[in-house]
Amino acid sequence: MCSGLNHTLSLPCFSCVPIPSVSCCFIWLFSAGVCGEHRRQRQTVPFSCQRSGRAAAYLRSVDPGRRIDHFGFDENLTFQQRYLIADQHWKKDNGPILFYTGNEGDITWFCNNTGFMWDVAEELSAMLVFAEHRYYGESLPFGNESFSDSKHLNYLTSEQALADFAVLIEYLKENVVGARFSPVIAVGGSYGGMLAAWFRMKYPHVVVGALAASAPIWQFGDLVPCGTYFSIVTNDFKKSGKGCSESIRNSWNAINRLSLTDAGLQWLSSAFHLCSPLKNLQDAATLKSWLSETWINLAMVDYPYKADFLQPLPAWPIQVVCKFLTDPSLPDKPLLQNVFQAVNVYYNYSGEASCFDMSQTATKNLGQMGWYYQACTEMVMPMCTDGVNDMFEPQKWDFDALSEECFRLWGVRPRPSWILSMYGGKNISSHSNIIFSNGGLDPWSAGGVTQNITDSLVAIVIPDGAHHLDLRSRNPCDPKSVQQARALEIHYMKQWIEKARHNH
Amino acid sequence: MCSGLNHTLSLPCFSCVPIPSVSCCFIWLFSAGVCGEHRRQRQTVPFSCQRSGRAAAYLRSVDPGRRIDHFGFDENLTFQQRYLIADQHWKKDNGPILFYTGNEGDITWFCNNTGFMWDVAEELSAMLVFAEHRYYGESLPFGNESFSDSKHLNYLTSEQALADFAVLIEYLKENVVGARFSPVIAVGGSYGGMLAAWFRMKYPHVVVGALAASAPIWQFGDLVPCGTYFSIVTNDFKKSGKGCSESIRNSWNAINRLSLTDAGLQWLSSAFHLCSPLKNLQDAATLKSWLSETWINLAMVDYPYKADFLQPLPAWPIQVVCKFLTDPSLPDKPLLQNVFQAVNVYYNYSGEASCFDMSQTATKNLGQMGWYYQACTEMVMPMCTDGVNDMFEPQKWDFDALSEECFRLWGVRPRPSWILSMYGGKNISSHSNIIFSNGGLDPWSAGGVTQNITDSLVAIVIPDGAHHLDLRSRNPCDPKSVQQARALEIHYMKQWIEKARHNH
Repeated sequence: MCSGLNHTLSLPCFSCVPIPSVSCCFIWLFSAGVCGEHRRQRQTVPFSCQRSGRAAAYLRSVDPGRRIDHFGFDENLTFQQRYLIADQHWKKDNGPILFYTGNEGDITWFCNNTGFMWDVAEELSAMLVFAEHRYYGESLPFGNESFSDSKHLNYLTSEQALADFAVLIEYLKENVVGARFSPVIAVGGSYGGMLAAWFRMKYPHVVVGALAASAPIWQFGDLVPCGTYFSIVTNDFKKSGKGCSESIRNSWNAINRLSLTDAGLQWLSSAFHLCSPLKNLQDAATLKSWLSETWINLAMVDYPYKADFLQPLPAWPIQVVCKFLTDPSLPDKPLLQNVFQAVNVYYNYSGEASCFDMSQTATKNLGQMGWYYQACTEMVMPMCTDGVNDMFEPQKWDFDALSEECFRLWGVRPRPSWILSMYGGKNISSHSNIIFSNGGLDPWSAGGVTQNITDSLVAIVIPDGAHHLDLRSRNPCDPKSVQQARALEIHYMKQWIEKARHNH
Repeated sequence: MCSGLNHTLSLPCFSCVPIPSVSCCFIWLFSAGVCGEHRRQRQTVPFSCQRSGRAAAYLRSVDPGRRIDHFGFDENLTFQQRYLIADQHWKKDNGPILFYTGNEGDITWFCNNTGFMWDVAEELSAMLVFAEHRYYGESLPFGNESFSDSKHLNYLTSEQALADFAVLIEYLKENVVGARFSPVIAVGGSYGGMLAAWFRMKYPHVVVGALAASAPIWQFGDLVPCGTYFSIVTNDFKKSGKGCSESIRNSWNAINRLSLTDAGLQWLSSAFHLCSPLKNLQDAATLKSWLSETWINLAMVDYPYKADFLQPLPAWPIQVVCKFLTDPSLPDKPLLQNVFQAVNVYYNYSGEASCFDMSQTATKNLGQMGWYYQACTEMVMPMCTDGVNDMFEPQKWDFDALSEECFRLWGVRPRPSWILSMYGGKNISSHSNIIFSNGGLDPWSAGGVTQNITDSLVAIVIPDGAHHLDLRSRNPCDPKSVQQARALEIHYMKQWIEKARHNH
């Protein structure tokens, strides 16, 4: 739970731990294994994401910046948008550009966690561009004032972000020698994948195609059932060990029963090695949210090899977790002791943690305030649990509660239908050249496009994949399904590039 | 000239007479023959545009209105958008909807001047919807305050207008029984035609196709030469009578010479029957602008039958005008006396005018303030004359002067490249189902799409057509070319409807 905010009732804040200062937590979890992959990239690619080449530095120094408001003329200020360029493999005679449509975080983090782009740059003779999303990382339209009130936040929308990308690409084509006719392909994962898909839909004159990885573009309105997300998490646990999901389902009432007494709360605090002891029912609710988020995070990062996120994780971490959760029929205390052992895998695989801090954030690379505002305005994604088709405590989707909370916090009201009006919901067949890739293990596939819509709006399902596994660097432990997915993605990208060259 | 604003230097204000109070005049002239067509429609259609049916009245009474700002969440107010519905021919079981994307004026005026939609409603079993553009007619977001300053004007953009249309259509589909799966086709002329085309490009999930009549979507940036518009006007006069365009070309210096003395100014005032006599060189410049606008207006409304605009006009009015302009070699005074006779055809065909008021506006149905603001922000259409390829006094396109004038008047700066970034310029081949129709006599065809782009982005050229002749009611004097154009338009619309029905 997000500090007093009933999470499934109000905001879909799953892949996070509570952040009391802003009553916020995060919907997205990016690529567990950040550090590992980062280190690997540093070894294998000449340019790191932290240090871009001279050309890029020059471009940024003369770049006039982006309009704070593309859609109105009263606010005429601009801001500096950060972007990273790697062109060591680029064919300077209009070779293609892979353009990462940055999402809710520091762009260097995404740059370091999208190894796929680095892996294919040479094969495609492509330039890589990673563009930061406004209001995240260093791309703050009003500097430190950017989050001060709803007036300053008014320009934090997907539409403005897409316009930034379009104008940036035009700027690069005009100012990078040899790029004038470079075909550009949008690439993104999660919210960045949604942006990649929407970018192709709205600006097909700017990008010839898009790879939208793990992009839940249909997790809006009533396009998909609100509970599928959680039933996928549950299935991941169900098939990873006998009794596993059932143990978690039973844990909630065990916690509820123990929370009724001070002694029980004390026992829970000690059993879960919490740094701050639980004092009341609200704290117990925080514990349950923290546990829920842990299971969800595990589902998203259930990768087939050792990887790092906040803490290092073993390969197929859910299987490891489930080894502790084999007997759902245990009494409350032994059951919860097992749950602790399971959680300990996620938070303390290294064995170094002395206690667990439920208020610790997932990663500082994600822009918490910004995403929370977006979830309070455009990005309204209904979520619910029933405890039957999933292993969570039942909670209905409650839009009104969300709306009240958003108004209290930001002075804004969410508009749940706007994204559908803007981007077309399921009625998108007139668009073209978009790959929607989804992992079968990834709960976000619930809101993704998992079946071909047309010949050029194609779905790639990676049965053994978690959250945008395909965007990660190649790994010896990669399952066949993700290898095949990447090969198909490259195949389509080459097709788009070829056609663009022909049309030019 | 627009009250001290050098018109070709700054704003393309052609089809208008000066409006001193706002230093503004108009770019668009709509459908000469308003009154005549209006009267005819009243006779032939059961519902007039002024009086919509009970269903429409009910819809409007419960309509929550449109967001003033679709693209931000700080401004949460709504406004009432006016729209007119005619459903007497509509097949209530998801019959198609023809949706007029209202442009810069009172929607009833467009409703009464788009006879084509009324003519085909029965054949297509279609509902007609005419949607008013925000900031025009009665659809004022802030009532009387709407034009008070740049803050209130901030929401007057094509993007906001398109979003209004999308949300309105969704509202109608939800609230009109039997319309849920109705395929919708956008129809518009001139700026409304641009909106129709852009609407299909940006919201293909809302409209299955668009008829964009006389829509100069390429009159931006350097997509087309800035002088073509005027050379088309000139050609219209050149081929309508020997010596005609040459006489007009010679008239400017004749005026210039006479304007040098008070006696000359007095002579001009009398010769042109001006209600207010010319006092100085600036007044003489106003006279020249007024004459220029007259020639341009005539080119736009050079229709093959008697029609009414501000004043009634004969069939093929330029031929009638040119009868007075056969000898360009005459001395100044007889030459200008002939020019007066020519102008007299346009302003005084009825013979009732006692004097000419150069400050008189073209029609009150056009929203002058609104369009001028749009021309100062998004709608920057470069125009120029050279006096060689056209019959006008040479004037270069001067963006800086425009920018200064816009800043002085509204506190805003135009962004000439934004429309290209937003709507793709000439790179629009990935879109589909748009008919671009243009008249060979219409100067706005200079910025129009006059060649097929793909199988489903088709151009229809009507050699004998002036400004969106095809959108006017059928007329016995219609040339074959416009009859064929309309037949082809109906053919495509039926195709789109059929395909939508099949896909549903």
